[in-house]
Amino acid sequence: MLKTELNIDVRYYETDQMGIVHHSNYLRYFECGRVDLLKKIGLPIEKIEESGVMMPVVSLNCHYRTPAKLGDSLNVITYIEELPKARLDIRNEIFNQDGMLVCEGSVMLGFINSETRRPVRCPKSLLNIFEQHFND
Amino acid sequence: MLKTELNIDVRYYETDQMGIVHHSNYLRYFECGRVDLLKKIGLPIEKIEESGVMMPVVSLNCHYRTPAKLGDSLNVITYIEELPKARLDIRNEIFNQDGMLVCEGSVMLGFINSETRRPVRCPKSLLNIFEQHFND
Amino acid sequence: MLKTELNIDVRYYETDQMGIVHHSNYLRYFECGRVDLLKKIGLPIEKIEESGVMMPVVSLNCHYRTPAKLGDSLNVITYIEELPKARLDIRNEIFNQDGMLVCEGSVMLGFINSETRRPVRCPKSLLNIFEQHFND
Amino acid sequence: MLKTELNIDVRYYETDQMGIVHHSNYLRYFECGRVDLLKKIGLPIEKIEESGVMMPVVSLNCHYRTPAKLGDSLNVITYIEELPKARLDIRNEIFNQDGMLVCEGSVMLGFINSETRRPVRCPKSLLNIFEQHFND
Repeated sequence: MLKTELNIDVRYYETDQMGIVHHSNYLRYFECGRVDLLKKIGLPIEKIEESGVMMPVVSLNCHYRTPAKLGDSLNVITYIEELPKARLDIRNEIFNQDGMLVCEGSVMLGFINSETRRPVRCPKSLLNIFEQHFND
Repeated sequence: MLKTELNIDVRYYETDQMGIVHHSNYLRYFECGRVDLLKKIGLPIEKIEESGVMMPVVSLNCHYRTPAKLGDSLNVITYIEELPKARLDIRNEIFNQDGMLVCEGSVMLGFINSETRRPVRCPKSLLNIFEQHFND
Repeated sequence: MLKTELNIDVRYYETDQMGIVHHSNYLRYFECGRVDLLKKIGLPIEKIEESGVMMPVVSLNCHYRTPAKLGDSLNVITYIEELPKARLDIRNEIFNQDGMLVCEGSVMLGFINSETRRPVRCPKSLLNIFEQHFND
Repeated sequence: MLKTELNIDVRYYETDQMGIVHHSNYLRYFECGRVDLLKKIGLPIEKIEESGVMMPVVSLNCHYRTPAKLGDSLNVITYIEELPKARLDIRNEIFNQDGMLVCEGSVMLGFINSETRRPVRCPKSLLNIFEQHFND
């Protein structure tokens, strides 16, 4: 299993007129978390894309527990529990500075060829790197 | 059942470097759809909020089928199939101008008292309006 | 001179915790306005980009007069007063449903070759279309 | 003069289909920069707002020099060169990891009473804190 943590401070523009972070932004935090995880294992997303593969979101879900607000410093936790095949499953939890669960969810990514825009399996070169880190 | 349709043209800033609409934006289109439905049955969200009730998102899910891109004119369909109680369930489908399903998902909203920020049941005044429209 | 008007209803996610539209969003409305103007004269931005030219923002300014809020229906007016050369100057005004000026500003776009990412002059094919509409 | 620096890594969703950071996002980075400056001198924006004062943007301008892209780690520099009176002037520069100027601009904030939404001068309590830091 891979697990990383990323600190994100709430930004003003991310709040809405309820005075809390707009619900769509947590899904953007999830993205920051998984991009950070990939970077930490040596796979920055811009390098993956340069290699001709894009990883669009296939599906996602999110459960909101405690609203985040301006001034909050969030801990975005990202888990990858299985090696990617045709899909890569990612799980996220976000906690605030008081240790309260803000939200949790999961995101499934696909792999597509950038040229043809057709689905492909996770490229061998990426899979190798995932395997190395799963074995650590 | 309530059902409304809202036309949304993709905006430039909603695209990302994959050249398609960023996945988080569809959840914002869902929001536009439900705000529009509420307005059409006589419950503009700003009026609901002025009455002391806010409707935060409790959970959501989304399945992405065909990416939308700049130039696309989307049809955002919003369904409410059951009267709200402690929660209001909403279902969305988005189609492009060629009739292809772009994505589909559902969103559960709660009701909270704006002052106390505590969960409440759907206020009677709102429920009455829903009931009128369900009976039509 | 070219002038177009585009109606934009404020979206919930565009508000911030001041209870008004976040200032950055008006610049996105400006973009919607100019994309719409280009489309109306037969130059949808996605076609321009497919032809190998991109039009990045070089500079902009905005003066905020009256905040827009949820429920507002805005009229985004876009003016092009001079034919493009190396740059395309655009001016915008946004009014609310009560005829109050919400904000006004101007945006200067450049032209770059999509491959080389180097600045180029406005392509002749585009210029021709601008000229036709200026002469109308 | 006050000057602070804030590191911001480009986020995936901030890119657009030109493959660069959408121009509106730099104005959001400016906001992150000034919120960070205020926090560092002991004036977190959420505390200012709780005290009954809001600081909406009155005007802004931005000149774009070098596009930022995914993978870039930006240095957002924020300058306040004069004590606030009815307005607070802020200047920003953003550099990338190679020391290239990405963009520069300035933002003028006003002060309004949260209740009346009327303009007020910079509250004495805030001004005192600015004065202390200007004298350092």
